[in-house]
Amino acid sequence: MTLLDSTALHGSLQDPVLGSLSFLNEVMGRYPDAISFAPGAPHPVFFADFDPDEYVQCFLDHLVRDRGLDRTAARRRLYEYGPSAGIITDLVGQALRDDHGIEVDPASVVITVGAQEAMFLVLRALFAHPGDVLAVADPCFVGILGAARLLEVPVVGVPEGTDGIDVDRLEQECRAARRAGGRVRALYVSPDHANPGGSRMSLRCRHRLLELADREDFLVVEDNAYGFTSPAHALLPPLKALDRSARVVSIGTFAKICFPGARVGYVLADQWVTDGSTGRRERFAAKLTAIKSMVTVNTSPLCQAVIGGMLLRHGGSLAELGRRRAGVYQRNLGHLLDALDRHVGTVEGSGISWNHPDGGFFVRVHLPVPADVDLLEVSAGQYGVLWTPMAQFYLGHDGDHQLRLSCSYLDPAQIEVGVQRLATFFRKEISA
Amino acid sequence: MTLLDSTALHGSLQDPVLGSLSFLNEVMGRYPDAISFAPGAPHPVFFADFDPDEYVQCFLDHLVRDRGLDRTAARRRLYEYGPSAGIITDLVGQALRDDHGIEVDPASVVITVGAQEAMFLVLRALFAHPGDVLAVADPCFVGILGAARLLEVPVVGVPEGTDGIDVDRLEQECRAARRAGGRVRALYVSPDHANPGGSRMSLRCRHRLLELADREDFLVVEDNAYGFTSPAHALLPPLKALDRSARVVSIGTFAKICFPGARVGYVLADQWVTDGSTGRRERFAAKLTAIKSMVTVNTSPLCQAVIGGMLLRHGGSLAELGRRRAGVYQRNLGHLLDALDRHVGTVEGSGISWNHPDGGFFVRVHLPVPADVDLLEVSAGQYGVLWTPMAQFYLGHDGDHQLRLSCSYLDPAQIEVGVQRLATFFRKEISA
Repeated sequence: MTLLDSTALHGSLQDPVLGSLSFLNEVMGRYPDAISFAPGAPHPVFFADFDPDEYVQCFLDHLVRDRGLDRTAARRRLYEYGPSAGIITDLVGQALRDDHGIEVDPASVVITVGAQEAMFLVLRALFAHPGDVLAVADPCFVGILGAARLLEVPVVGVPEGTDGIDVDRLEQECRAARRAGGRVRALYVSPDHANPGGSRMSLRCRHRLLELADREDFLVVEDNAYGFTSPAHALLPPLKALDRSARVVSIGTFAKICFPGARVGYVLADQWVTDGSTGRRERFAAKLTAIKSMVTVNTSPLCQAVIGGMLLRHGGSLAELGRRRAGVYQRNLGHLLDALDRHVGTVEGSGISWNHPDGGFFVRVHLPVPADVDLLEVSAGQYGVLWTPMAQFYLGHDGDHQLRLSCSYLDPAQIEVGVQRLATFFRKEISA
Repeated sequence: MTLLDSTALHGSLQDPVLGSLSFLNEVMGRYPDAISFAPGAPHPVFFADFDPDEYVQCFLDHLVRDRGLDRTAARRRLYEYGPSAGIITDLVGQALRDDHGIEVDPASVVITVGAQEAMFLVLRALFAHPGDVLAVADPCFVGILGAARLLEVPVVGVPEGTDGIDVDRLEQECRAARRAGGRVRALYVSPDHANPGGSRMSLRCRHRLLELADREDFLVVEDNAYGFTSPAHALLPPLKALDRSARVVSIGTFAKICFPGARVGYVLADQWVTDGSTGRRERFAAKLTAIKSMVTVNTSPLCQAVIGGMLLRHGGSLAELGRRRAGVYQRNLGHLLDALDRHVGTVEGSGISWNHPDGGFFVRVHLPVPADVDLLEVSAGQYGVLWTPMAQFYLGHDGDHQLRLSCSYLDPAQIEVGVQRLATFFRKEISA
């Protein structure tokens, strides 16, 4: 029998980042009755009456009405192969224009298999030389770290405070990379309620970051999965809306504002790429599309139709789709923070603290002891409550004493009981 | 404005292989009235009464009846995130068992975004060391070449005759690679009616290949997209069914036997991977799943449900799904070969010849002149007929005088007129 030795497989497979998803699923599978603050998944209430076919029909009507197809041709467009860039690039472009005033040529948009594929394509296209470095906010979404590992892209972390990434530190990293004969090629950052950091970039920080990107000549890869959860009175413009020099590549997902099972995301990449020898130029999106044709060929047009129909039913607006969902997450986050104050805040002198984000799905809790896999087993097995160790989100060891709580998948009553269990767990196992 | 120089992007983007898809689409777009022998897409007749929702309901019934879920939980499984390995691994495993007698643990199956993602995952997992070489049948499907380019995997071509790959030559390549300090890590091959070569591996060749794989210690990556089009009386077992030592990784697609818009494929990877330090072992499929979690997270469960429903409606059999489709392609291939004999066969002394496959979508035509992009423009613009230059499928220049005709997307009447146009084109532009 053929046995493969793990050391003969690609090195990324030795990285714990690649196993992080399956590890969490495995733990959750063993404790089905535990209350889980682990999954950052959309709340199931949105799927109670959900009917994808209704939106497919809406999109077909659009193809017939607005694009002049007959019904047979419209239906075939959903079932056959399609363009690698996607069949709803115009709808997404229009939505970004209407929602944020971003000028979007549909040829600058690629529809991807979730935001994850978008990250992967951007990294593959941008990282060509051994000295090219990817800077990331630290802590950081594991998806971008995993994609970087698969492509052997070196990653450097930049600390994040509550007001966003440390721009001065990023500047130092740019200089350090240049001194080492390379350069920071791109920064990946989630400016609004980052997963898992929870920070939110101030307007001033956004402007400073874009100035630095111009000065140091790197691209900013913006992932705005959680912007829609901001309080309505405190919305900030995405980096792409402030971008005057095509520095920003903007990645989005429909997983949170529509549904994850569609596996539909997008990337807006309006930079011009010039070919030195021919003088020809095309959008960076065209390059991402060429790469996509060799990774997934195209994103399921059937799934794109469901998402297209949902967009159309909400006035063609991503923001409107988000607004319909934001209330549940605002409510849940409020419950979680309030319950932590009431139940855990009373554990005096415990050395336990947490951040107080005003949006997003996540709260970070600092413990006086390592929040590791062993502690998670105790929490799950003896106290019936699950969370995510933060260590996997950090490049170094800064997160070893932290855990992440997600409120997105739970109801207020579950959050209440879950935090009570957490408080008991903290009191019995952790307090000094 | 940010301008990106194409030389600062990943080298794969300079490779014509990555632009091959968009090039063909572009040409077809400019000549909408031409008869196109270019697309290797399933015939549209299968989508006339196609209703994905009908199959979704069938799959939901299955989840309720066979897996004990209530209807709400079953529906949520389609809309939420799901396991990266997929939710129809059991159905696919059962189908491979029933159809071909292959013993399949569902944990050896990963559901992918088409066969393309499966190729990509396998290459990423297997190619870890600079000396590792991928051998491919030459000519070769561009998808595997493109994936190799993205991952900077060196590729060596092995010629293919009508009876399959040249096993002796492959053995020589194995030795050459070892002498150079590396090794042939895997062979990619499509044993039945390969796209575009059209060859079919004899039973003897299949056995010899598997023996060589054992002797030289490489994996065989089998892509069986076209096996279902074989004449019913002449079916041959897939390599995986002959594989006694877990040498074969088997890749499949539902694009041809169900519909391309689902973007659903699979990979069967039942090799055991051992971890030298811990002694733990798991299936190679688990490693592919970990990589997939950082490329596309998971394959749309909604799309998997459509495919799962189609499988269930056809007795859980991939072969039965294929049988329902095979007739159209057998008929079309017969028409194409017959029309070539009648219309082109009369161009005497022309130096034009073609192969005579007994299955698949494709016929290869040899010309006495280069079948290049310039010639394609003449064919499309002046004679109203499109085809695919074969050069892009070859690693070297062996295909420069060849073109590929696909019969899958046309009706017999279109094939007749198309071949008449081809014959005129050949007579006026090419004959000696």
